[in-house]
Amino acid sequence: MQVWKDYQAQHQDRFLEELLELLRIPSVSADSRFNGDVQKCAEAVKQRLQEAGADNVEVCPTAGHPIVYGEKIIDPSLPTVLVYGHYDVQPADPLELWHSGPFEPVIKDGNIYARGSADDKGQFYMHVKAFETMHRTNTIPCNIKFMIEGEEEVGSANLGIFLEQNKEKLKADVVLISDTSMISLDSPSIDTGLRGLAYMEVEVTGPNRDLHSGVYGGAVANPATILAKMIASLHDENNHITIPGFYDKVQELTAEERAALNAAPFDEEEYKKDLGINDVWGEKGYTTIERTGIRPTLEVNGIWGGYTGEGSKTVLPSKAFAKISMRLVPNQDWHEISDLFTKHFEAIAPKSVTVKVNKHHGGSPYVTPTDSVAYKAAHKAIEATFGKEPIPVRGGGSIPIVALFEKTLGLKTVLMGFGLDSDNLHSPNEKYGVANYYKGIETIPYFHQYFAEMSK
Amino acid sequence: MQVWKDYQAQHQDRFLEELLELLRIPSVSADSRFNGDVQKCAEAVKQRLQEAGADNVEVCPTAGHPIVYGEKIIDPSLPTVLVYGHYDVQPADPLELWHSGPFEPVIKDGNIYARGSADDKGQFYMHVKAFETMHRTNTIPCNIKFMIEGEEEVGSANLGIFLEQNKEKLKADVVLISDTSMISLDSPSIDTGLRGLAYMEVEVTGPNRDLHSGVYGGAVANPATILAKMIASLHDENNHITIPGFYDKVQELTAEERAALNAAPFDEEEYKKDLGINDVWGEKGYTTIERTGIRPTLEVNGIWGGYTGEGSKTVLPSKAFAKISMRLVPNQDWHEISDLFTKHFEAIAPKSVTVKVNKHHGGSPYVTPTDSVAYKAAHKAIEATFGKEPIPVRGGGSIPIVALFEKTLGLKTVLMGFGLDSDNLHSPNEKYGVANYYKGIETIPYFHQYFAEMSK
Repeated sequence: MQVWKDYQAQHQDRFLEELLELLRIPSVSADSRFNGDVQKCAEAVKQRLQEAGADNVEVCPTAGHPIVYGEKIIDPSLPTVLVYGHYDVQPADPLELWHSGPFEPVIKDGNIYARGSADDKGQFYMHVKAFETMHRTNTIPCNIKFMIEGEEEVGSANLGIFLEQNKEKLKADVVLISDTSMISLDSPSIDTGLRGLAYMEVEVTGPNRDLHSGVYGGAVANPATILAKMIASLHDENNHITIPGFYDKVQELTAEERAALNAAPFDEEEYKKDLGINDVWGEKGYTTIERTGIRPTLEVNGIWGGYTGEGSKTVLPSKAFAKISMRLVPNQDWHEISDLFTKHFEAIAPKSVTVKVNKHHGGSPYVTPTDSVAYKAAHKAIEATFGKEPIPVRGGGSIPIVALFEKTLGLKTVLMGFGLDSDNLHSPNEKYGVANYYKGIETIPYFHQYFAEMSK
Repeated sequence: MQVWKDYQAQHQDRFLEELLELLRIPSVSADSRFNGDVQKCAEAVKQRLQEAGADNVEVCPTAGHPIVYGEKIIDPSLPTVLVYGHYDVQPADPLELWHSGPFEPVIKDGNIYARGSADDKGQFYMHVKAFETMHRTNTIPCNIKFMIEGEEEVGSANLGIFLEQNKEKLKADVVLISDTSMISLDSPSIDTGLRGLAYMEVEVTGPNRDLHSGVYGGAVANPATILAKMIASLHDENNHITIPGFYDKVQELTAEERAALNAAPFDEEEYKKDLGINDVWGEKGYTTIERTGIRPTLEVNGIWGGYTGEGSKTVLPSKAFAKISMRLVPNQDWHEISDLFTKHFEAIAPKSVTVKVNKHHGGSPYVTPTDSVAYKAAHKAIEATFGKEPIPVRGGGSIPIVALFEKTLGLKTVLMGFGLDSDNLHSPNEKYGVANYYKGIETIPYFHQYFAEMSK
């Protein structure tokens, strides 16, 4: 619509400035040293929602980081869209690999470089600015509710409780989320599914103290060596995961479904070049698209033990640790998988060590019904602003709460993401394209309009 | 001798006080942040040697940490003993496991708790006080030279050069070192051998940046997982080391030699209880005493990669690292073994990652001839003060420079150590028995006396 175009053209510089301001707040939810900044960020989001025209905006406390809520109810009889996003970000380390400060956003070659630029500040804020556009041009076609949380990067432990306690307030017809990516601005796509997650931490203990590796080496089990052997055994020679029962409930796709999935544009040489690797890796019998989309995985996210400082120390460590997470696909249950992992990991530990396994957090996988009104509205909105039909793809990431929305609120979710896989999510030099940001702000109002029309 | 006894009884409190003062200097050679303290410690050692009566005492600069030299030449025609020790210590971390400050020595239950109390400040300083005893009582029976270095814990990289450049100054008949342990004060023993060392650091690189484990997990080789698989493969199911050629030059002992070795008092239940382990571990077909004495080993001294902070981060790391050291036995050459390790580690790396292997440092194994005058003198000295014959044992640790002494100066070494394996060397709460300290000071003069007599 011309009024949207005009309004956005007129305010685009401010739209960008406001995002940069938000990115300057180091709202790292995983590290308690940043608790103050997380709170500050919640307050900032509240203010921005109010300025954009939302009503009843509040910072809702939880047992962890707060959730920001706001709404615009133009007519209770009209359909309602619940916009979800998160203002918390991943830790920025390793800091030395950033080309500019993770919380000092810079724009280079058309990209905004900052932690959270794509995941998810840059994406949820598109909704705030799209809402402002519709509000200022008096073109809001349906009711809109905002729920922007601060614990997505640590598993949204308190969101479930919040949903339970606010079912009435959160009543809606669909959940709309921009926290995923598309293939490219030339090949727009919509995620029709997300993988689930089960995040574990393991501790292997050998001797009751660090030992001299000369005096005891060779006669006492080294927990770092044992942990390595245990981790090594979790994948077989075909890179199948060896945990008994792990694949039992995995939904196998039909040949047609796999063919459709693999029809998406993908250049393996480009992929390897971008990552600087000589070869891809993964489960035998599946393509890269399948390995990251429809197959469950097990990754070591962190490992540590013994002396890791400068120089050398001839020590046989007392303990070794690892953070290990699994991505799950329909119909794996993350609690069940966590238990299978724990049972297996304890079972394979040799008598010479003791192991402790702790569940960090998790979430169930999700698949979006492509025949729903909301999905069709998203499809049409992207077609309207990109000039071509979006390709349905399976996302490899996880937004644990998507499954929760369905379970607690009975709501389906549409994943209309505008990022790119190459945005360095969770990595140094995270970025988000300025064009992607504007394209999202341009597209979102169409979603609301089509959703309202098609819901009639 | 009574004069020694009387002098030591009279000064024993000061002997202890002086050691505690030395232990308060955090002379950590591996960590450049402590360079100033290492220098300070060298100066303190110089002063103590002068006070004890040594001549020509000097702090000799090297490319790294300095070496303290001092001597007492009573008659060039008499035999000369070169006393070697080191004033540098291992890093103190993990600090949180210390019951008292590593550099705030406390005496508890007859033990001195402090980093370096046993390794090696408490042991080399016995020689300074034994020397003082002989000097003040005018009973020095032979020439004595002191060489106390500051880089033993980091591989003595600069000592070789120092030996080369000071062959004349260091001329002697034997090297005497107290930097090893005995079975117990009730079962005194002498190390007749030491293992060599080859200390490596490996770096495994996967993608050129940390990746989102959801977006890329399952399709890109995870360097932490690959490193685990590579480390796991370094020991086979019998805990034999799998590096081709690793055992080629290993000197196998005869059944008699092994029987003699295993005759040393050893209680496996006690051993397990002390370490808090349910089972020992090691190379099939060998006893614990053999595994730590006459067999080569490979230990992971440290491993790290990915996110190791608080909470969780769903990252697929770009790099993973490990510090890996091997203990060597006669006749393994540490340069050759380092090369075999490097070649093998590079060979087993899958195409999907790149590996870098760096040599930290190393040293060759050593065996003391038990039929030498010096060894017999040590044997007799211990018998004189302990009232029982010492048991010959093979030490598992390494003092890389022992082999160097033979190569450069043509000198054999006697390892007359007074520590215990349970002294927590290289571990939190390192300790040294006050009784062991005094027993050493009491025994050393006898060594010099017998060595002088038996050399006639």
